[in-house]
Amino acid sequence: MTESYTPPKVWIWDKENGGKFASTNRPIAGATHDKELPVGKHPFQLYSLATPNGQKVTILFEELLAAGHTGAEYDAWLIRIGDGDQFGSGFVEINPNSKIPALMDRSGDTPVRVFESAAILMHLAEKFDAFLGPKENRAEMLSWLFWQMGSAPYLGGGFGHFYTYAPEPMEYPINRFAMEAKRQLDVLDRQLADRDFISGPDYTIADMAIWPWYGGLVLGRLYNAAEFLDVESYTNVVRWAKAIDARPAVKRGRMVNRTSGDPSEQLHERHDASDFGTKTQDRIAAAE
Amino acid sequence: MTESYTPPKVWIWDKENGGKFASTNRPIAGATHDKELPVGKHPFQLYSLATPNGQKVTILFEELLAAGHTGAEYDAWLIRIGDGDQFGSGFVEINPNSKIPALMDRSGDTPVRVFESAAILMHLAEKFDAFLGPKENRAEMLSWLFWQMGSAPYLGGGFGHFYTYAPEPMEYPINRFAMEAKRQLDVLDRQLADRDFISGPDYTIADMAIWPWYGGLVLGRLYNAAEFLDVESYTNVVRWAKAIDARPAVKRGRMVNRTSGDPSEQLHERHDASDFGTKTQDRIAAAE
Repeated sequence: MTESYTPPKVWIWDKENGGKFASTNRPIAGATHDKELPVGKHPFQLYSLATPNGQKVTILFEELLAAGHTGAEYDAWLIRIGDGDQFGSGFVEINPNSKIPALMDRSGDTPVRVFESAAILMHLAEKFDAFLGPKENRAEMLSWLFWQMGSAPYLGGGFGHFYTYAPEPMEYPINRFAMEAKRQLDVLDRQLADRDFISGPDYTIADMAIWPWYGGLVLGRLYNAAEFLDVESYTNVVRWAKAIDARPAVKRGRMVNRTSGDPSEQLHERHDASDFGTKTQDRIAAAE
Repeated sequence: MTESYTPPKVWIWDKENGGKFASTNRPIAGATHDKELPVGKHPFQLYSLATPNGQKVTILFEELLAAGHTGAEYDAWLIRIGDGDQFGSGFVEINPNSKIPALMDRSGDTPVRVFESAAILMHLAEKFDAFLGPKENRAEMLSWLFWQMGSAPYLGGGFGHFYTYAPEPMEYPINRFAMEAKRQLDVLDRQLADRDFISGPDYTIADMAIWPWYGGLVLGRLYNAAEFLDVESYTNVVRWAKAIDARPAVKRGRMVNRTSGDPSEQLHERHDASDFGTKTQDRIAAAE
């Protein structure tokens, strides 16, 4: 980095200088290669990866199934974003924004695409009339669901990127986004001071949206930033995060499409409830 | 900026080094001072400012009224974020996240708070069953509505901040967020190639959410970045942006809570439809 920088009149794509994700960040949309997506037997076809945004949806599917919504059976296919799977033609047809997760809902007469993690949460929660919280509380639930979508880019694309992934540490961006990440944690901490869940007494899709990001952060799973952000001081967020972390459906949801960490917690693809017992990476390795 | 920077073990709030918005960006949530909010006569009380997020809601209110939904009458109160109005106790009660816009819906028996611009759009659109698009297209509309919420932070808090507001130009962050802003414009441009509006033939709240940001950008109103991002090359976005810009309700919606630019287009507070003709800043100045 130079001490003094003047932007050009017109921005130019420098492919050499993009940090860790230079190969997957592009200034143009659309497919880079032809590739059809696989389609399984279930009504819902999910194409995803176990990032925080991916976890939101697999957690909801597992919660729906655990609550007895047998119509929520799904096939979860792995999209390896480091390999550019999100730029395949079949994926772009489902999500023109080339981000995971993306869903095809084949439960009706006409297949319907849904993209953006929280849109998928809304779509499924409305379809099964589940995890929306009481009707009189809908405005509060929506407020927090949209809060997550508008806030987490500062945590992920802002703080996480500059603290962890950028080619070198930069003081101003790290400060800017660390301050905002802490402010957001404090917003949640105050809200959770006298409520079990974010929008009231009920566990809703707003919790499922917020937990993989802010729960992951206070549980020390994101960006190796627990000490830097002093996450333990947000005691209400920690309490809430641990309560959700203990749910069996959440444990399963976190395993789906996971490709890193403990092999016993990685289920690259999920096609059946029994896969959690038989098709984790350690079981596959042991059988080979 | 130093050539080499090592973050401390635990982040510390440096109040001197925050750029243009140092006084309004804080690492802690909650109120800084006691201040009740004014309440007018209409069912909806809006507390806002004519930023892109603020415009979304005033445009929807004006569109609802123009479409004959007389129940959508609203008082729009000015929140001067540069003065810290968003940290007043009354505002924080409505939006614990201390961002505009915030809404109190007093149309029912119990007042209901709603915050986050797109949550307010959903709340109002569902209440009046308007601008949601056809039911069979709901998943597509939701996908684009949430796309806006998850994407615009990269345009506003990312590109806009580092290109326009940061204390000095920094090459890496400007490149990172310029690339993403251009990618997002290209996503929209492809989607709008064969559709009048973002989610299909109908003008919906997804358009109202996207237009103040991306429409404002291609119309040259945001960040003085039209040349830098070559916005004219996104011809479908430009066509769509101009079509929406020509709507009378959109023109009115942009005036509400506006405190900069042409005084004839500034209506600091809106309490009645007639205010647009009588209470703009130039009319007030002429009468004084």
